[in-house]
Amino acid sequence: MTSRFALIALLFCLITTVTADDRKHIVDDSLSAFPFSNGVLVGDTLYLGGHLGLDKSGKVPANVEDEVNLVMEAIKKTVESAGLTMDDVVSIQVHCSDLSLYDSFNKIYKTYFKNGYPARAFLGSGKLLRDAHFEVLGIAVKKSR
Amino acid sequence: MTSRFALIALLFCLITTVTADDRKHIVDDSLSAFPFSNGVLVGDTLYLGGHLGLDKSGKVPANVEDEVNLVMEAIKKTVESAGLTMDDVVSIQVHCSDLSLYDSFNKIYKTYFKNGYPARAFLGSGKLLRDAHFEVLGIAVKKSR
Amino acid sequence: MTSRFALIALLFCLITTVTADDRKHIVDDSLSAFPFSNGVLVGDTLYLGGHLGLDKSGKVPANVEDEVNLVMEAIKKTVESAGLTMDDVVSIQVHCSDLSLYDSFNKIYKTYFKNGYPARAFLGSGKLLRDAHFEVLGIAVKKSR
Repeated sequence: MTSRFALIALLFCLITTVTADDRKHIVDDSLSAFPFSNGVLVGDTLYLGGHLGLDKSGKVPANVEDEVNLVMEAIKKTVESAGLTMDDVVSIQVHCSDLSLYDSFNKIYKTYFKNGYPARAFLGSGKLLRDAHFEVLGIAVKKSR
Repeated sequence: MTSRFALIALLFCLITTVTADDRKHIVDDSLSAFPFSNGVLVGDTLYLGGHLGLDKSGKVPANVEDEVNLVMEAIKKTVESAGLTMDDVVSIQVHCSDLSLYDSFNKIYKTYFKNGYPARAFLGSGKLLRDAHFEVLGIAVKKSR
Repeated sequence: MTSRFALIALLFCLITTVTADDRKHIVDDSLSAFPFSNGVLVGDTLYLGGHLGLDKSGKVPANVEDEVNLVMEAIKKTVESAGLTMDDVVSIQVHCSDLSLYDSFNKIYKTYFKNGYPARAFLGSGKLLRDAHFEVLGIAVKKSR
């Protein structure tokens, strides 16, 4: 229930894409006060910034599965806003403040990929922004379809 | 002795490469239960996942030099399985849970590169998976030879 | 005052660029004893290693704003030594040992970008080399101008 509400809220977030010269900046309007883009697309390559799993109030939810769903939906949203699909993701870094959550993360993470997994590093971090358990970044390369 | 045994074990690990569309996934068969590829090659660019220095039982060896040898051999194996060489590596991230091991790491690390070093970040991490001291990832780009 | 001295010192550091085959290694001469390049340029893509904000004595300055200035000037210097500009940076990772410095970092960081921000991850790390508060790395892609 909590999870469903949070995901619906996420779908209504606005994403702005700004084309500057040969590249496209993908910016989540709710985060535009901060000095970063969610992703930058140059040619066929999309560089993804660090994404957190935040609910509609900008907080990390109490339930860890909700957090994993939110962070992966956030990644997916940036990927799709750039015109790519999750199938195009080649590299992922998961920075995790509590390694005991490894299995919980994987269980949800693996549902996002259908044709082979990205190269991935799963790294124990220090404390993360907003007390998140996960910050996820990566690179996607548009397939020649 | 311990080190030699571990390296021999590593050489017998099977690596599977799966070509999906325009990209090749490099997967170590002993790790195929986990949702990641060791590397993904797209065009000339190889994205390396996080590699640990594990012995044949899947554990981090007691001796730190053995661990460094194992993690660098694991990286080299993925690089070569993709058809590239260590000379093609352009970028490396070392996540290290104990910075006092910096010199021990460098001593072995530098023997892997003959024509200039990759750009590298050496980052103090939190606790790493399997209590490893090092997790190493990076990017390689095949030289136009 | 401290800051100005440090920045002047930085401007006098020598940078060597070595072209090997199809790639260029950018090496800060004051750091050439270490097994890394500050950056490696392949085609239009520059891979930046981890940069610290060090003063002319190789130490992290007492003042955090000085440190942020130094680390961003170090990044800029590597970018420009490769023939690119800060406007070409597409991806940044900030590894930070004290998240309470987030706003101090952003205040200076954002002055370095004029046409949209790179995708960025701001990650809580463990202890960093030389007790730095920040280690910054990233990727830049030369614009087709």
